[in-house]
Amino acid sequence: MHATPSSTPSTTLTFTTEQPLDDGVLERRFTLNDVPGILWTPPSATPSAPAPLILLGQPGGLGMDRMYPRLVGRARHAASAGIATVALEGPGNGDRPPLPGADQARADLRTTLAAGEPVPDDLVDRLVLPLVDQAAPEWQAALDALLALPGIAGPVGYSGGLIALGVRLALVEPRIVAAGLFAGSYVPRATFKEARRVTIPVHVLLQWDDEGNDRQAALDLFDALGSTEKTLQANLGGHTGVPAFAGDDAGRFFVRHLR
Amino acid sequence: MHATPSSTPSTTLTFTTEQPLDDGVLERRFTLNDVPGILWTPPSATPSAPAPLILLGQPGGLGMDRMYPRLVGRARHAASAGIATVALEGPGNGDRPPLPGADQARADLRTTLAAGEPVPDDLVDRLVLPLVDQAAPEWQAALDALLALPGIAGPVGYSGGLIALGVRLALVEPRIVAAGLFAGSYVPRATFKEARRVTIPVHVLLQWDDEGNDRQAALDLFDALGSTEKTLQANLGGHTGVPAFAGDDAGRFFVRHLR
Repeated sequence: MHATPSSTPSTTLTFTTEQPLDDGVLERRFTLNDVPGILWTPPSATPSAPAPLILLGQPGGLGMDRMYPRLVGRARHAASAGIATVALEGPGNGDRPPLPGADQARADLRTTLAAGEPVPDDLVDRLVLPLVDQAAPEWQAALDALLALPGIAGPVGYSGGLIALGVRLALVEPRIVAAGLFAGSYVPRATFKEARRVTIPVHVLLQWDDEGNDRQAALDLFDALGSTEKTLQANLGGHTGVPAFAGDDAGRFFVRHLR
Repeated sequence: MHATPSSTPSTTLTFTTEQPLDDGVLERRFTLNDVPGILWTPPSATPSAPAPLILLGQPGGLGMDRMYPRLVGRARHAASAGIATVALEGPGNGDRPPLPGADQARADLRTTLAAGEPVPDDLVDRLVLPLVDQAAPEWQAALDALLALPGIAGPVGYSGGLIALGVRLALVEPRIVAAGLFAGSYVPRATFKEARRVTIPVHVLLQWDDEGNDRQAALDLFDALGSTEKTLQANLGGHTGVPAFAGDDAGRFFVRHLR
């Protein structure tokens, strides 16, 4: 347990636990001010050979503990290519205080879905945008602190399921040079507009038979992205059934752009 | 130059030229009855360790000689994974006699496109189906002959740009266990119906910004495929600008299913 002063005066990064995994990956839990997070670094990362970093985004509503098995799997996969990864508890997730309006928005979503009605744009905005507006600067503050650590350096990638957050970060955070987006969340209208201004390489993963996901919205979002290198990969297997080969392809996308 | 009796009495496979390429790949031109073709075998292929085989389909209207640079590139790529490849001159292509009705269908297509009108279904049928109906049994006869050669064995894959031919072969030819389809040709209505009955793994490559291709038809075709393992990969780069990494991903698809 030790504290490292961060590069911005208002942010304090405090490591709370440190655990080596069996494959030599170092897992460290931390808090960034009051936001919990987990950092995984590959055994190859040293101060003289620092690792690139991937931000592991999570869907809204699911806390980091519930997502841990999938997060650590992705962390080990990246570490095998010499890449560090980090997860942050999202605003309103886990033990963090609820976001204003989030409970009401989720209740409205349940009512809408139970009635078999389409989810209106303004409800998507209420569900997603407050989360993105708060999470994006938290991730940027995390980057400030983590890139100051020995053994971690850029370039940085974003990989995750909250498409609106990935698009926002791809747009506003110049240290992020590549984004892997998992299509499986509601996409606010503003995100389509932001997507047109994204220029970094993007890899979009879509589960074609994911009944809870709006396939056309994912295709429209892919079409809107302004990047000259963008890849859409669609597979079967349902929301959580991304085939192993698709994970490998996504991993190679990050290796191409981060190593 | 030598002749090999084929496994069906009516088919004669005659090798006409034999040329080792600089990377050890053996390129042999042949005729199968009156159909010219090219066979590429990797240096690793021996009678005791025979290679799998990929059929390299070509778009209608472009002869094998004009396609040679791209074909040999794909052949070398497959050979580097120990896989043999074969190209056949399509019906009506190169020096082969024109298909009945093909000139009229192409003239009608030019008129339709010049008028800025959508291509009607019956014209797509006239453009594509006669080619598929003749090419599919030719490919099957080629398989009979080629799989009888020392150094070549199954399993067999189909990889190519004439989607209707790939779907037909995937449906009627049980020796084909995996198909890579390049979306860039007109898709007849009958092909959508056949696609629903396809069950082998399929990898569909779509150039998202290919202005001459009907993107929605490609998405509908992917949706229609009955396979439980199917992947759609879409990229930018125009009709002929498939990124190298996408070719590598397609190559890994065949290695997964043929090796």
